[in-house]
Amino acid sequence: MRYVTFEVPSPVGPIERVGVLGASGSVIDINLAARQYYADRVGRRRGTAIADALVPADLIALLANLEVGQDALHRVLDDLPIEVGRTDEQGGTLVHALDSVRLFAPIPRPASIRDCSAYEQHVAAASRGSVPKRWYDFPTYYKGNPFAVLGPDTVVPVPDDSEKCDYELEYAAVIGRSGRDLSPEQALDHIAGYLIFNDVSVRDVQFREMSVGLGPAKSKDFDGSNLFGPALVTPDEWDPHVHHTMQAFVDDEEWSSGSTTTIHFPVEEIVAHISQRETLRVGDIIGTGTVGGGCGLELGKYPPRGSRVELRIEGLGSLANTWGDAPGER
Amino acid sequence: MRYVTFEVPSPVGPIERVGVLGASGSVIDINLAARQYYADRVGRRRGTAIADALVPADLIALLANLEVGQDALHRVLDDLPIEVGRTDEQGGTLVHALDSVRLFAPIPRPASIRDCSAYEQHVAAASRGSVPKRWYDFPTYYKGNPFAVLGPDTVVPVPDDSEKCDYELEYAAVIGRSGRDLSPEQALDHIAGYLIFNDVSVRDVQFREMSVGLGPAKSKDFDGSNLFGPALVTPDEWDPHVHHTMQAFVDDEEWSSGSTTTIHFPVEEIVAHISQRETLRVGDIIGTGTVGGGCGLELGKYPPRGSRVELRIEGLGSLANTWGDAPGER
Repeated sequence: MRYVTFEVPSPVGPIERVGVLGASGSVIDINLAARQYYADRVGRRRGTAIADALVPADLIALLANLEVGQDALHRVLDDLPIEVGRTDEQGGTLVHALDSVRLFAPIPRPASIRDCSAYEQHVAAASRGSVPKRWYDFPTYYKGNPFAVLGPDTVVPVPDDSEKCDYELEYAAVIGRSGRDLSPEQALDHIAGYLIFNDVSVRDVQFREMSVGLGPAKSKDFDGSNLFGPALVTPDEWDPHVHHTMQAFVDDEEWSSGSTTTIHFPVEEIVAHISQRETLRVGDIIGTGTVGGGCGLELGKYPPRGSRVELRIEGLGSLANTWGDAPGER
Repeated sequence: MRYVTFEVPSPVGPIERVGVLGASGSVIDINLAARQYYADRVGRRRGTAIADALVPADLIALLANLEVGQDALHRVLDDLPIEVGRTDEQGGTLVHALDSVRLFAPIPRPASIRDCSAYEQHVAAASRGSVPKRWYDFPTYYKGNPFAVLGPDTVVPVPDDSEKCDYELEYAAVIGRSGRDLSPEQALDHIAGYLIFNDVSVRDVQFREMSVGLGPAKSKDFDGSNLFGPALVTPDEWDPHVHHTMQAFVDDEEWSSGSTTTIHFPVEEIVAHISQRETLRVGDIIGTGTVGGGCGLELGKYPPRGSRVELRIEGLGSLANTWGDAPGER
């Protein structure tokens, strides 16, 4: 399953919806489809109440329902003829063309963002060859700003005074089931899926901040600095343990290329480590870290203002954003 | 005004309420008082709706209402004879005795926790005398886990394998008005009030983590590691710029003593710095950092298991917790 969060215009302003990607570029509005499914069985009023509870139009709420909502969702989708433009009895659009809707980040308001640094090559390059001794002991991470999220095809508000606004080519896991003190094996059961993460980083500020010892802050937290998308891909469709090509393009020129298999700490070890004595929440996003060679810092160059920065990860899709000065839009 | 969040028992389980501290050890349930006030004027049904909207029983929602809710709250409080045990028409308790209710952290679920390190003496001691050169340039901070909060008189779940579970004696500011790119002068207008913050830190883990460069994580993020309370004190009642004694006691023995005036970066500079290019939210908590001498690390000793760790800040009250092994309660 590939979940997306998208916007539809309406006479009372834009409305945020949750969809799953269907065949041939379609987006199924799953809450609306569920309303129709249940309305056909128990009437419109009760049908809407049941659909809104079981298949809500909010991806975190939907994931939190997984244990009981998954079956309902499958029944709804099995029942629905997927054809673009299909409407329900009241004229609501059940199936959109993907290129007709505006995608947000799949999880526009994560419960939290943690970002690990699990690729040895990136750490070695970023620390000029000398990987800190303790790095090998456990997966280290910092915490990001979960309110500073943008989705695909948005303009990143590059700070005026920075010449080193960098991309980071990563994938992240989204927690779908709350839990604590998990083993790596258990941790896999708590991951709802994966998505592309561009951890935008202002390097000039970052080096100043990190020299004090408390980790990165303003260098990675400014509004619009965490880019996610395009879809949340469930683990049955994407396995991080097998080779997937990871690439970054700046104005269609390949700058970075790597593989998911070069990670030092597998994602389940990262999630298990974080969960020790600390409760993971549905909607927590855990970045695994920049793949070796997956940022401008390692190349000694940065995307210029106005350029288009695209991250592609085989099986997760493509996430493109413009490095611009305009105020960011969600 | 001194806001508290507290719990009352009910036949359908405990209910979370918001109160203000009244004279002589009373806690006024301000939402219930507002319901009564508006019921007297527009009837019970509309009165409840208006009270729940204007004076909600959730402190973040209440603060977010400040611009329109403050006047309503003052009208309600001016109208109410404050006597402990007073009930409304339906038998609800409008005024509790403080010692009869269980206090939570004033903001049990902060939007975020950022914690600065703004006292030179603490930084010098923690880094063995050599303050990092960049520390003087801007207020550095890390981000905490906003789900790992406990209130007064709770048991801190000290990790089994740690012999160095430390307290940190701080005060924190709570953001009451959203804003971005604030000057220090503007920043003061965005602070709803102040509270005591005990930033519990497992030093053995912290040193390992910080040697990698991404700042503290598990050492400060475990469930129950952020202690706040007892009340959120509004700026008209507490001015961080004048001298207030800050003290820490372990089993009633004074371990730490300092003053609010020894801070290097005033709170408004901290808030202004964080707000650059980054939107502050209502309910963000910003710790200012450990006062010089305000933790066991600086003394070479740590509170033993089972001890009672009490922080007192003149004008903000007292926050006491037990260093124990039992699972933490909120």
